[in-house]
Amino acid sequence: MAVPFQTAAIFAKTRPEGHQAALVQALEAIFAMLARLGMRALVDARTCAALALGGQPGYSLEEIGEQADVAIVLGGDGTMLGIARDLAAHDVPLIGINFGRLGFITDIALHQMPEVLEPMLHGRFETDRRTLLEGDLQPAGAAALRGHALNDIVISHGVTGGLVEFAVRIDGATMYTQRADGLILATPTGSTAYALSASGPILHPSLNGLVLVPVAPHTLSNRPIALPDNVELEIELTEARDATVYFDMQSFAPLAAGDIVRARRSRHVATLLHPAGYSYFATLRQKLHWNVMSGDQHGRG
Amino acid sequence: MAVPFQTAAIFAKTRPEGHQAALVQALEAIFAMLARLGMRALVDARTCAALALGGQPGYSLEEIGEQADVAIVLGGDGTMLGIARDLAAHDVPLIGINFGRLGFITDIALHQMPEVLEPMLHGRFETDRRTLLEGDLQPAGAAALRGHALNDIVISHGVTGGLVEFAVRIDGATMYTQRADGLILATPTGSTAYALSASGPILHPSLNGLVLVPVAPHTLSNRPIALPDNVELEIELTEARDATVYFDMQSFAPLAAGDIVRARRSRHVATLLHPAGYSYFATLRQKLHWNVMSGDQHGRG
Amino acid sequence: MAVPFQTAAIFAKTRPEGHQAALVQALEAIFAMLARLGMRALVDARTCAALALGGQPGYSLEEIGEQADVAIVLGGDGTMLGIARDLAAHDVPLIGINFGRLGFITDIALHQMPEVLEPMLHGRFETDRRTLLEGDLQPAGAAALRGHALNDIVISHGVTGGLVEFAVRIDGATMYTQRADGLILATPTGSTAYALSASGPILHPSLNGLVLVPVAPHTLSNRPIALPDNVELEIELTEARDATVYFDMQSFAPLAAGDIVRARRSRHVATLLHPAGYSYFATLRQKLHWNVMSGDQHGRG
Amino acid sequence: MAVPFQTAAIFAKTRPEGHQAALVQALEAIFAMLARLGMRALVDARTCAALALGGQPGYSLEEIGEQADVAIVLGGDGTMLGIARDLAAHDVPLIGINFGRLGFITDIALHQMPEVLEPMLHGRFETDRRTLLEGDLQPAGAAALRGHALNDIVISHGVTGGLVEFAVRIDGATMYTQRADGLILATPTGSTAYALSASGPILHPSLNGLVLVPVAPHTLSNRPIALPDNVELEIELTEARDATVYFDMQSFAPLAAGDIVRARRSRHVATLLHPAGYSYFATLRQKLHWNVMSGDQHGRG
Repeated sequence: MAVPFQTAAIFAKTRPEGHQAALVQALEAIFAMLARLGMRALVDARTCAALALGGQPGYSLEEIGEQADVAIVLGGDGTMLGIARDLAAHDVPLIGINFGRLGFITDIALHQMPEVLEPMLHGRFETDRRTLLEGDLQPAGAAALRGHALNDIVISHGVTGGLVEFAVRIDGATMYTQRADGLILATPTGSTAYALSASGPILHPSLNGLVLVPVAPHTLSNRPIALPDNVELEIELTEARDATVYFDMQSFAPLAAGDIVRARRSRHVATLLHPAGYSYFATLRQKLHWNVMSGDQHGRG
Repeated sequence: MAVPFQTAAIFAKTRPEGHQAALVQALEAIFAMLARLGMRALVDARTCAALALGGQPGYSLEEIGEQADVAIVLGGDGTMLGIARDLAAHDVPLIGINFGRLGFITDIALHQMPEVLEPMLHGRFETDRRTLLEGDLQPAGAAALRGHALNDIVISHGVTGGLVEFAVRIDGATMYTQRADGLILATPTGSTAYALSASGPILHPSLNGLVLVPVAPHTLSNRPIALPDNVELEIELTEARDATVYFDMQSFAPLAAGDIVRARRSRHVATLLHPAGYSYFATLRQKLHWNVMSGDQHGRG
Repeated sequence: MAVPFQTAAIFAKTRPEGHQAALVQALEAIFAMLARLGMRALVDARTCAALALGGQPGYSLEEIGEQADVAIVLGGDGTMLGIARDLAAHDVPLIGINFGRLGFITDIALHQMPEVLEPMLHGRFETDRRTLLEGDLQPAGAAALRGHALNDIVISHGVTGGLVEFAVRIDGATMYTQRADGLILATPTGSTAYALSASGPILHPSLNGLVLVPVAPHTLSNRPIALPDNVELEIELTEARDATVYFDMQSFAPLAAGDIVRARRSRHVATLLHPAGYSYFATLRQKLHWNVMSGDQHGRG
Repeated sequence: MAVPFQTAAIFAKTRPEGHQAALVQALEAIFAMLARLGMRALVDARTCAALALGGQPGYSLEEIGEQADVAIVLGGDGTMLGIARDLAAHDVPLIGINFGRLGFITDIALHQMPEVLEPMLHGRFETDRRTLLEGDLQPAGAAALRGHALNDIVISHGVTGGLVEFAVRIDGATMYTQRADGLILATPTGSTAYALSASGPILHPSLNGLVLVPVAPHTLSNRPIALPDNVELEIELTEARDATVYFDMQSFAPLAAGDIVRARRSRHVATLLHPAGYSYFATLRQKLHWNVMSGDQHGRG
């Protein structure tokens, strides 16, 4: 039987922090597997440079986006987020192999790779489409920024501390004006990241929704609000404090009073491939330690 | 121009608590307005009895459901919830006139009625379709219960106090087993009711979602989860404490260990009619006191 | 060197649920240890009955309170809470040996008992004095209740569901009137029990404070309030819903409208003895899973 | 009868933002009142400069600290916080007159001043002693900072966003290592400021406690912890992200990995004077909108 994929892109964590040898060894195993399956491997140029994979030619994101029909990512959720944004416009499905602890979206452990990856490349996988955000900054000036986010677009205070004030508009209508440490606009994927720390709800990945979560809001009755994901949001910085806008907390730009962050659901999605039998709820239970049936709060038997 | 409605059902709060005269007076005004518009009025039988409207024939819910093409409800959100459930299967749109303070869903104040109601009956209104839940109890025994909810289906502890333990399944797959004071399954409409007190998020009414909010959960990492509203939920009471299931906190039945509450989105919706220019966000800002731009947390200027 | 204790009371969980043999075996080991140390053992009468310790005479709480100078408790935090209340007036220090999982206040595991208990009985222990509450009900009618609590005094809704309304007075001055599912008045010990599930803060055991934690409060700006522990509290049920007052969630009484629960710090304390080297913070880290340095929220590296 | 004070210091908001004329007018009224009472007025030098009070000599903080036996502050809570820190070592009691909306600690409205201030200067006031924090930075290098805080000492992330990691030690013993957006160490006074936005509890001013409140903590079971106020805290920045330490969110210094913020209760207190009849709980109810007996959450009647 023919494999469903001809060409696999390969990405690895580019700050291996001492795990370089293990990463290189894992990559060798992947190269061998792809060769055995008759698949072509396109190694990301930054990965080649970071891991000193001398023998391999490195490919640009552009080349990978055009030619790869699957991408294998070795790293943690942070690495995966970056690649998902980089490839957002190309609809390349991603397989995440976690080099450390299992992540929310990189759910294959390195030691499972030998037995799990090959069946996946043969077509036995679960397809998991995740909402992507796209955002830009108005006015489109020097600090113009346009980008995708798989987790969240965040506005946060700078070093002079304290409150940021912003007005939020949904499809042009004012929702509220708010003062807070920050504001998180999260996708379902991002709802288990920063937004969860700020007391946001979990959004199931198949919910067509986004959630706005204030961080330490000044008005005590301010609460997270889940919105349908077909809206156009505008978040306007209404006060001249220093503030920053973040995409997935990885790329960022300074904001000035009057700047408007616009955001909407992207027409692209991030497609994650999981081993057959994948369960979103099982991942949730494990990552949030819900498995532990503690029975141990004293006096609440 | 012909009015879009021929027949209006009339409901009023059946426990008027001293406001009986004012209620009767408001009803008289409505009768006169309907007569002027050439519309037929069907007064709810319970309303007739409660307010001693001697001259009026009372109509059963069945008759009203079949014949009315709009219902005017005088009361608060609690009254409206009951009528919405009563008429759930009949798709009669509701106009809520609040007798006391404005509610989330009864957003016309009594004093506004004279100028607001007639234009609405002439067709100048905003249509607001709200998700309804339907639920039943398994096994279908003596305590069998089946019903609709516009706000929420809630499972809560009884008088022997403390924790209830339940397993939650989504489309047959286990989501979690949890111990808590209770569990709230809320619609977007219900997300600003009990669920909000229990730290749930606000769900916009046009979001196709439901939210599960635990009340005082034993496991500290348990959080509200928003789900798409096309799922089938099962909540099984797994421990033999006394517990109760509530529909909109108004009708309820006892639960025993092993009982399963099943819930899903109803194929019916509750249709609310608002005066032209209605804004969901404006209601939210007003009810949650977000208008107050306090600027007053000391040291957070 | 003489042991600091002459007479040890012995209590065990009275609903052993299948662990009867193991409990009896642990008790035999304790009897032998006490004999070796020349100490007298007073076995609690209910323990004798529950475990069918035929050969042992059983002692009443009164006899134990008067004669014992230490009590050894086999069970979980729930068992310990009950004994602490039973012996509140007698100032007998408690050693808690946990039969299952370690608790917040029963911090010696059964398997550690052989090596840990004897040094403690020789005087090598840490003394940990915990605030006790005492409460009573006004008017002192049929439902009169007076008692101690080591964790909390709780007022909670009954089966007709939903909100309870109460007025809280501190030293006679009104603090607030509130509507909520319930209200928890917790000691520092209780702050890691039910109150924690209801989003209360943790109070360090050496803080001279109590905390009032509302459960699902109607007013969204209601928050837990920590008070000095030398105040007199009155919680008056101001609405005629069915409600219940609980002491440590173990003993309870129904409340009617107008009933007042009065509470204050007891002049007695519960004295817990821990093995040398005990650390409150280490217990906290372990019980609340703070040891897990997860590093795993994706995108928050 | 002699007035209890001979010499009053006068401070006003130094960024009057358009209210300059009204401020000057209020100051004139105070000067006249003091003259009538035979009291000496020492006007703060910065106040003189900011309001261009040409005829008045300005006094340094040092002179005021030594000579004044009461200070009258015109401004909001932010102004009051600054003066309280400036005069921390001098134990001068403060009277706060709020120029805009009432604050938590500036509880006399400008229009009440004529009738309220003179009786206070005659000795009819309530004395309210508030805990002050003092903190310093280790190692005592270029960024050395030492200061007081009436509200809080805060560690917060910088512009590269996201998490700060820190270890907290209490009297030398490790409490926890935590990752969060920030950490707030608040006094009872500060518990109703920033800490409240971050879901901290309210601490009554007469509680001898402090509270540690994490902002958006990574570990979901991290909770605010109230500690006795006789402890020595150390908060060590354990990761080389950019971070900042704030005193009352007003003065701040950058932090580097390895830096330790040390904090403890100051031996000084801030003494606030309130009009006779002052009620802490009344202020709380008003500022947190608890007076509003809403009765309006639909379906929670």
